[in-house]
Amino acid sequence: MTNATNSKPIRIGVVGATGYTGVELLRLLARHPAADLQVVTSRGEAGTPVADLFPSLRGAVDAVFQAPDEATLGECDVVFFATPHGVAHGLAAPLLERGTRIIDLSADFRIRDPELWAQWYGQAHGAPQYLDEAVYGLPELNRAQIHDARLIAVPGCYPTAVSLAVLPLLEAGLIDPADVIADAKSGVSGAGRKAQIGGLFAEVQEDFRAYASGGHRHWPEIHQTLSGVAGQSVGLIFQPHLVPMTRGIHATLYLRPQVADADWQACFEQRYRDEPFVDVMPPGAHPQTASVRGTNLCRIALAQPPHSGRLMVLSVIDNLVKGAAGQAVQNMNLMFGQAEIAGLDGLPVFP
Amino acid sequence: MTNATNSKPIRIGVVGATGYTGVELLRLLARHPAADLQVVTSRGEAGTPVADLFPSLRGAVDAVFQAPDEATLGECDVVFFATPHGVAHGLAAPLLERGTRIIDLSADFRIRDPELWAQWYGQAHGAPQYLDEAVYGLPELNRAQIHDARLIAVPGCYPTAVSLAVLPLLEAGLIDPADVIADAKSGVSGAGRKAQIGGLFAEVQEDFRAYASGGHRHWPEIHQTLSGVAGQSVGLIFQPHLVPMTRGIHATLYLRPQVADADWQACFEQRYRDEPFVDVMPPGAHPQTASVRGTNLCRIALAQPPHSGRLMVLSVIDNLVKGAAGQAVQNMNLMFGQAEIAGLDGLPVFP
Amino acid sequence: MTNATNSKPIRIGVVGATGYTGVELLRLLARHPAADLQVVTSRGEAGTPVADLFPSLRGAVDAVFQAPDEATLGECDVVFFATPHGVAHGLAAPLLERGTRIIDLSADFRIRDPELWAQWYGQAHGAPQYLDEAVYGLPELNRAQIHDARLIAVPGCYPTAVSLAVLPLLEAGLIDPADVIADAKSGVSGAGRKAQIGGLFAEVQEDFRAYASGGHRHWPEIHQTLSGVAGQSVGLIFQPHLVPMTRGIHATLYLRPQVADADWQACFEQRYRDEPFVDVMPPGAHPQTASVRGTNLCRIALAQPPHSGRLMVLSVIDNLVKGAAGQAVQNMNLMFGQAEIAGLDGLPVFP
Amino acid sequence: MTNATNSKPIRIGVVGATGYTGVELLRLLARHPAADLQVVTSRGEAGTPVADLFPSLRGAVDAVFQAPDEATLGECDVVFFATPHGVAHGLAAPLLERGTRIIDLSADFRIRDPELWAQWYGQAHGAPQYLDEAVYGLPELNRAQIHDARLIAVPGCYPTAVSLAVLPLLEAGLIDPADVIADAKSGVSGAGRKAQIGGLFAEVQEDFRAYASGGHRHWPEIHQTLSGVAGQSVGLIFQPHLVPMTRGIHATLYLRPQVADADWQACFEQRYRDEPFVDVMPPGAHPQTASVRGTNLCRIALAQPPHSGRLMVLSVIDNLVKGAAGQAVQNMNLMFGQAEIAGLDGLPVFP
Repeated sequence: MTNATNSKPIRIGVVGATGYTGVELLRLLARHPAADLQVVTSRGEAGTPVADLFPSLRGAVDAVFQAPDEATLGECDVVFFATPHGVAHGLAAPLLERGTRIIDLSADFRIRDPELWAQWYGQAHGAPQYLDEAVYGLPELNRAQIHDARLIAVPGCYPTAVSLAVLPLLEAGLIDPADVIADAKSGVSGAGRKAQIGGLFAEVQEDFRAYASGGHRHWPEIHQTLSGVAGQSVGLIFQPHLVPMTRGIHATLYLRPQVADADWQACFEQRYRDEPFVDVMPPGAHPQTASVRGTNLCRIALAQPPHSGRLMVLSVIDNLVKGAAGQAVQNMNLMFGQAEIAGLDGLPVFP
Repeated sequence: MTNATNSKPIRIGVVGATGYTGVELLRLLARHPAADLQVVTSRGEAGTPVADLFPSLRGAVDAVFQAPDEATLGECDVVFFATPHGVAHGLAAPLLERGTRIIDLSADFRIRDPELWAQWYGQAHGAPQYLDEAVYGLPELNRAQIHDARLIAVPGCYPTAVSLAVLPLLEAGLIDPADVIADAKSGVSGAGRKAQIGGLFAEVQEDFRAYASGGHRHWPEIHQTLSGVAGQSVGLIFQPHLVPMTRGIHATLYLRPQVADADWQACFEQRYRDEPFVDVMPPGAHPQTASVRGTNLCRIALAQPPHSGRLMVLSVIDNLVKGAAGQAVQNMNLMFGQAEIAGLDGLPVFP
Repeated sequence: MTNATNSKPIRIGVVGATGYTGVELLRLLARHPAADLQVVTSRGEAGTPVADLFPSLRGAVDAVFQAPDEATLGECDVVFFATPHGVAHGLAAPLLERGTRIIDLSADFRIRDPELWAQWYGQAHGAPQYLDEAVYGLPELNRAQIHDARLIAVPGCYPTAVSLAVLPLLEAGLIDPADVIADAKSGVSGAGRKAQIGGLFAEVQEDFRAYASGGHRHWPEIHQTLSGVAGQSVGLIFQPHLVPMTRGIHATLYLRPQVADADWQACFEQRYRDEPFVDVMPPGAHPQTASVRGTNLCRIALAQPPHSGRLMVLSVIDNLVKGAAGQAVQNMNLMFGQAEIAGLDGLPVFP
Repeated sequence: MTNATNSKPIRIGVVGATGYTGVELLRLLARHPAADLQVVTSRGEAGTPVADLFPSLRGAVDAVFQAPDEATLGECDVVFFATPHGVAHGLAAPLLERGTRIIDLSADFRIRDPELWAQWYGQAHGAPQYLDEAVYGLPELNRAQIHDARLIAVPGCYPTAVSLAVLPLLEAGLIDPADVIADAKSGVSGAGRKAQIGGLFAEVQEDFRAYASGGHRHWPEIHQTLSGVAGQSVGLIFQPHLVPMTRGIHATLYLRPQVADADWQACFEQRYRDEPFVDVMPPGAHPQTASVRGTNLCRIALAQPPHSGRLMVLSVIDNLVKGAAGQAVQNMNLMFGQAEIAGLDGLPVFP
């Protein structure tokens, strides 16, 4: 529990903490050994104690929501954005100019090409001048750049689960980059804490469905990451589905080997040997989303479907932790010289 | 509600009705206009009123479980087997010899090759002499043979969902038979009503996982059906997953077109135009398992993943109805000159 | 399935069918042997086919939502209101004047005292002139008056579950009317199909809570019913709770006997002997909400807590059926000379 | 996170850690700053790595199950029993004689009267000589005795939730001890990790029911605790129900004030002011089980039902933490001079 190196507390602001990634971030920060939560903002809930909105934080978080204010936020060492897309665009410049670093959990800086971003998000990019500088905060891929980054784009939930499942194979040139199929399944907290009929318990319970079969916003993000690793534009199918559960993503990858009889298991074990949050399970294992719930872990297992030349990779994360708030804290730890697992060593609550 | 043609009641026996497919079969038969339930057997529960075990049937099913007995069963017009595999093998001969027709919901007569069956089910086939005669009871494929069949092998749940999603394309030669990927997701009632830790609520709730990645018994069944349609051995990947819900299967098919710009939608609509239980949804739809719950329907929709040459088919059924008991009753209706939808016109309970 | 007496079809209008009681009503009417659905209204969804909003009704309901219109509704024999409170007030007069009978599933005509209604519902009563005429549509209590009623107030879900559990005892004078405690638990569909954060899957799943401990709108309704039966103002505590499931109400009643050694079981069995929808279970049974799901049944069992002079009654219904749409259809059957169970003989889907 | 006082590690044995209370105990101990897990036993799983059975503990618990052995266990400072009742009886003497302290999560030492125990548990008490010495491990009631205890009987889950909700009132003489009604609702993990049909997902999902209406084993335990506090035999009704969720207990107490206009809220706030794990919520609040999930907290709120002289207390705990493993660790902390919250300061994972 004492993973933090000795250092002064990190002054932290959180913008937009009324959603599920926000409350998860507050949960993690409340027990982080070096976190000093300075300000939590919400326009709609200004004046409300955070613990009134989220009784799970009673006794642990004393903060009161306040309206976002550049000056106050600018006194923080780092500000997290747990906001819908478009918000971080507007606040990036004033905060960076004051020397405040930014960890953005939204999609605002994930896509390098502002026109591609505009196409998928339906509005013009609001801060393209920072796209070159923004670091895609997947530590397993970009750890070195994260240390000194001023602006982190925390990867999306699906992109995290999918990318970690394919990275080692693409890096090693073991699979055909032109034929990657990712069938992904997510709990419904990924849709956020928004009043909408589609998210009601009675609509979700005892139902399973695909969605966004015409194209999901995480497609260009995954495509960008995998293509960057492969050194060529990857042929990617990404199809998400909705699971009647709150947390968890399971990605099932169907890949085409381009090397016969490679030692797939060794490839993954070596690639992730030193990664604190990636668990390569033994062959034949079936990773369960419940086994990572509430944690920053990604568990991965490989399989070779019988009577088929294909390779299958199974990958699970908690969409709100490794897929959002936990990965954001992992980035913060790297940026501020903390132990990488500081504040992230809680174990999955099972059952 | 009055779909039955005029005819005398069908005398019915049900062997092994203590599981989920069994109780579902009893629910459907209890409201079937021509069904005359004569005998319900269970070795373990002999002497227990059915409604004591299943309070949902109080007031609707008066039968008492009795030990299976060839003579009693042999007085029925038809006997359903809702048993584990291996049981129907032993009773097939005595019943068929007495003129009783058989609708077997187990896997006993689904695979035509007894050696293949033995390999996947871990025991020798017990009644190979009936394999030539047994009809694979998928009405959308074999309606003509079902009418006069003495012995029906009701398809498995996954094979039903997958086969209906691919049949039209294979028949029309529109996809590459060598590259069929079926990513399937099922509610947990498919595992049956057995005392096992893996099926406990606390193990399943808030969890999603793949299983049987080394090979599932429905693989050879699906392979046989699709290969029969394609006229060649199909290249098939079939990967099942467990969804934290009770009922429902969702199959996501990734297929490779071998004809450019075919009218996929028209292909499905024409193929299933007269099918009472297959609903081809409009392009862009996402079929939901909740929309078929408790019914014999299969709903299907097509999609073309962006930036990909592939075709995707989404297919949902209720695993206990179209995937088991409902399809069994549909077969019975065809065998006994009933309206095909007799007893099967209940609507999905939503939400 | 052929419970309808011979009669011409009943021309039916449904106002406000975009909620859960509305879609359940449409499900029941779509398979009712005498129902002729003429018009389904919704201001917000006018022009949308009903089956587009509710895919579970694809192929079964062809109607298109249209804006409510007095003239069109006035051509119906009966109009159901599946609306928020306050709506039926405004349409009652024009419809009744045209000779159209009304079955109101909302709270508009449940409370006889308009001032009490105003106090609990926060607005003036909009049609007090019909309060004397309105019949409280609990067939087990008011069957005779229902036959000829022009205006039915369908009881609330909690009031149905609680009233049926206490009626026989109050009628027989076996319990102390001054000390009735009803601890009730409901699935979340009772809160309706409204976009609100509190109803989101992620808020409800794996949570149990009480609500409305300061007073629930069903308190005055239950109080009125029980007091009417007891002939005196009943001392009533009614505390509702929210269960992480979609359908079902379980009421646990703690009652104080005022007669020693009464035959409680016989009291219930005799009272409900001829009731088609009340099932008195044997002593020691524990009624399960799953055993009535999707049906119009109420199952009841009695218990005597050890080391206590109290009597306990356990009662379950499906809140959307016997607690709303099913009871509404039961009323319609009585009003239009149908068999009481017409269209209501579906069996619970289990599991 | 550094709540432990400086002290040498506590050598710990866990007997019977294959159930849900066992795995929860291992989760808590794995992150406890002073815990040194020496041995984990299971007859059935001897030789299996703990993390093979519970993948949630991969990377955090290296222990391998071994058969229970008095000598090995006797080298521990403390041994936890997470076993069915009857097991701790047999091992208590040899361990206590070796100087090993015992924290028993089973029911073996909760009831002071061995004949009463025998009556409710259906077998003779196996170690009555220790009943005088055993301390009932409810810290809020018996903190002083726990410090020096050799043998702790950890309270049952229901008794914890109910007792904490009534203690302050009975101590202050504010309610009638003759009329206590506890309507309790529990998630299904309370039934343990046993292969039984009643616990299957498909049996529990979308169902709510009462159980044990003829008498539950926690009745004598609650009765003993409350009677001890009241100084007289308490009139108690305790009725448990099963909620379709994994974790959590909600107790709803109906109490009869015997003092007019007492300040109930102040009574609770003062009584629990210094308790680290009891949260008295503001009047009008509705404690949610989700707000304590995975933690050792008990949240309590009061209400006064309208038109009633009664007082209502609402109380929630996580049955596996404050109702079992967490309370066990809290006892250990007190026994071994640790900060009481050591290892117990994780926050609820919400949603």
